[in-house]
Amino acid sequence: MALDKKLEVCLTPALIHLYDVEQYVVVIIDIFRATSSICYGIENGAEAIIPVAEVEECLAYKEKHPDYLLAAERNGEVVKGFDFGNSPFSYTAEKVSGKTVVLTTTNGTQALYLSRKAKQIAIGSFLNLTALCNWLKTTNENILLVCAGWKYNFNLEDTLFAGAVIEQLKGDGYRLDDPALAANDLFQLGKQDIKQYLKKTSHSERLKQLGIEEDIAFCLNIDTTTAIPVLDGNQLIKLAL
Amino acid sequence: MALDKKLEVCLTPALIHLYDVEQYVVVIIDIFRATSSICYGIENGAEAIIPVAEVEECLAYKEKHPDYLLAAERNGEVVKGFDFGNSPFSYTAEKVSGKTVVLTTTNGTQALYLSRKAKQIAIGSFLNLTALCNWLKTTNENILLVCAGWKYNFNLEDTLFAGAVIEQLKGDGYRLDDPALAANDLFQLGKQDIKQYLKKTSHSERLKQLGIEEDIAFCLNIDTTTAIPVLDGNQLIKLAL
Repeated sequence: MALDKKLEVCLTPALIHLYDVEQYVVVIIDIFRATSSICYGIENGAEAIIPVAEVEECLAYKEKHPDYLLAAERNGEVVKGFDFGNSPFSYTAEKVSGKTVVLTTTNGTQALYLSRKAKQIAIGSFLNLTALCNWLKTTNENILLVCAGWKYNFNLEDTLFAGAVIEQLKGDGYRLDDPALAANDLFQLGKQDIKQYLKKTSHSERLKQLGIEEDIAFCLNIDTTTAIPVLDGNQLIKLAL
Repeated sequence: MALDKKLEVCLTPALIHLYDVEQYVVVIIDIFRATSSICYGIENGAEAIIPVAEVEECLAYKEKHPDYLLAAERNGEVVKGFDFGNSPFSYTAEKVSGKTVVLTTTNGTQALYLSRKAKQIAIGSFLNLTALCNWLKTTNENILLVCAGWKYNFNLEDTLFAGAVIEQLKGDGYRLDDPALAANDLFQLGKQDIKQYLKKTSHSERLKQLGIEEDIAFCLNIDTTTAIPVLDGNQLIKLAL
């Protein structure tokens, strides 16, 4: 089989300048917890989720659109006065169905912004893993999996998810770069029990201290949703298939 | 045991700004082939190896010091008119004993330059693995393993070597960051047959095309040397133990 398409992994947003993103369909990955919550919210009927970089931008949206919900988090905690933060449990149908949510997060939004010139941008998490992969296979494009990471550095959970995507796509004639090979190898080590595998990470310890272990378990559920959030203009909406 | 020292991995020079290098002893890693050749050259009695960033700087040294040997390589090949490039086979005792070599390489020199404010900078390769680790244990300092990578991106061979260093140090009470955990896990996957493991990488394929498979095999020999090259001013010399 000719390896005519690329399947690559950008391990942190700080490396994205090394890729010509215009040549790729990009998947943004921020497992704990932004992209997991986005997948869950879109699945649950949120009309749109607008990712922004700064808390101040959230507030500006609220002034224009009082009906918008505001979600903001800094260092893992809800910003005071906002409707909610990044916990996926805030994105139930009861809360978000038919609503627009303005979201700012520490890492995920930055990854989105830096990828904005891509052919298309989709949102990935363990929740929509197989639906996402099935769609990616149909695009016939180069694919770049962009890990949001932690403070611009590599983290294990986002990389492991990239490896899970590669696991489903690698038989389809893609050319893998070294980060993709490594991500897929790490997934082989962790796939039997992802939660257990990730327990050793620094991030896991930090999130535990924030008292959001239930969030972590939720974000590691595989294939509980099928919606694929994609960027349309400045907002994330459900991809029409 | 209190985890009071850090053992971390900077996966590419493009991420080094994320670390306060002044807090660390840094190990520079450029397995194919710069740091392997440096270890071999210092072991074989080279008086000093001077790393520089540009071919032009090499030539400037030669004007002042006609007895210096010049080593330069761009995209894996010896620069025309230079004494030799990065092949470890150029660094035999016969050629380098008692000599000073001015070396420029694509990735390794950049990693060195970007780490220049570290407490101390040492050079690592599979050749001097155990000698290096034994010395690192005695420093009682935070350790940062800096992978030179490939064109500022992650590569498997440098990361695997970082994982090999971590394998020898991790029982000594260091706190590992996520890149260090990943590097050590990748080493677990590759350690039985490192050469075979690396065959799938893009870099391996590229080096093969350059006809330097013997170099690759040489650079994967473990513990064939004991010298630890360290940066002293602007030159690499043998650490006096």
